[in-house]
Amino acid sequence: MARKIPVVENILNANDRLAAENQSRLDEFEILGVNILASPGAGKTSLILRTLGALANNVRLAVLEGDTAAVTIDADKISDLGIPAVQINTGGQCHLDASMVQAALAQFDLSALDCLIVENVGNLVCTADFRLGTHINVLIASIPEGDDKPYKYPAIYRGIDALIINKIDLLPYVPFKMDYFLRGVEALNPGLVSFPLSCSSGEGLDSWIEWLEKQIRMRRLA
Amino acid sequence: MARKIPVVENILNANDRLAAENQSRLDEFEILGVNILASPGAGKTSLILRTLGALANNVRLAVLEGDTAAVTIDADKISDLGIPAVQINTGGQCHLDASMVQAALAQFDLSALDCLIVENVGNLVCTADFRLGTHINVLIASIPEGDDKPYKYPAIYRGIDALIINKIDLLPYVPFKMDYFLRGVEALNPGLVSFPLSCSSGEGLDSWIEWLEKQIRMRRLA
Repeated sequence: MARKIPVVENILNANDRLAAENQSRLDEFEILGVNILASPGAGKTSLILRTLGALANNVRLAVLEGDTAAVTIDADKISDLGIPAVQINTGGQCHLDASMVQAALAQFDLSALDCLIVENVGNLVCTADFRLGTHINVLIASIPEGDDKPYKYPAIYRGIDALIINKIDLLPYVPFKMDYFLRGVEALNPGLVSFPLSCSSGEGLDSWIEWLEKQIRMRRLA
Repeated sequence: MARKIPVVENILNANDRLAAENQSRLDEFEILGVNILASPGAGKTSLILRTLGALANNVRLAVLEGDTAAVTIDADKISDLGIPAVQINTGGQCHLDASMVQAALAQFDLSALDCLIVENVGNLVCTADFRLGTHINVLIASIPEGDDKPYKYPAIYRGIDALIINKIDLLPYVPFKMDYFLRGVEALNPGLVSFPLSCSSGEGLDSWIEWLEKQIRMRRLA
């Protein structure tokens, strides 16, 4: 008679297990975790500063800053606004992972927060592969990067819950076919919500802020 | 009496060994290998197309295109110019490595080339860690990415031989302190040669083309 082989299903890898722990911890305190992804210079810090400016009166926010070097340029800007900020220096690593986020979570007073924004390392490839335990992934595309990015970096577009299209104030000065760009996005992530805006002029920010505030409210009712 | 422990020095890792093999192969044919690095959308393909346009009459060029997906947008543009092009699909990997380049080298008629341009994956972090066997590393920074990139992504600035500062036509429309940017570069890579230019308007391209042509000439005399 053939021996029965034990089958163990749904084994999480180490990172996914830590990510699940992080998410439980955020859920315990009804905190929405938001992972902000983008290539270098697309406007992660600008978007976060704008978001803090618009929401800080209604929502208790904190920011976790990922950087590949021990430079606190971004964390300082957030701290200057009186918002709790923790910096993770990845030591040259190209992405945040769940263990880094877990270590940083211990630095916050979670009982005093409604939303934790995580600024990932500027990278369109590696960051797509590592769950952090946040609830939503937001990608920032940027007009001067060009309209072919969904076609060239498909993996990251598949895994996101919202798309910011930043620097629309530069549309008159660079070639960018919005139709072509959005067609690429739609093929990879049908029905994805997107927010064309400019962190520089402020145009279009309202819709993003409204959407994010709704996600935070829904989390607290969940 | 203490036993003598054998010490083996200068062991190359697997990638570096293949990179050295690639470089020997290029040297055998007096070909200059140029590795083009940048974040997504900084203008790698635009710079390559401009460079091919300016040099193709004097220099026998070929291009090796690195992409994370099986999309031939860039390789097609180069092929349309009648320039030999080979695409490497990294299958989601965040950088080219020496083994990928070695496989691609076999696709070219090296006896018919003076210069091989390698377009790496758009990534400011991981690409810095993998030697390919090319002779010079050229980084493209881009004005709309912002002036703080040398401070945030220092590793890649340390390992380059020339810096292109692209999209200077956008300087009137975005905040970018050139002094601050160049101070960061100088601290990481003293005396680095840099070329502010616009692949869109063509301004500043001449100095880059002249410099590159000189590197190609020097290689053939070496």
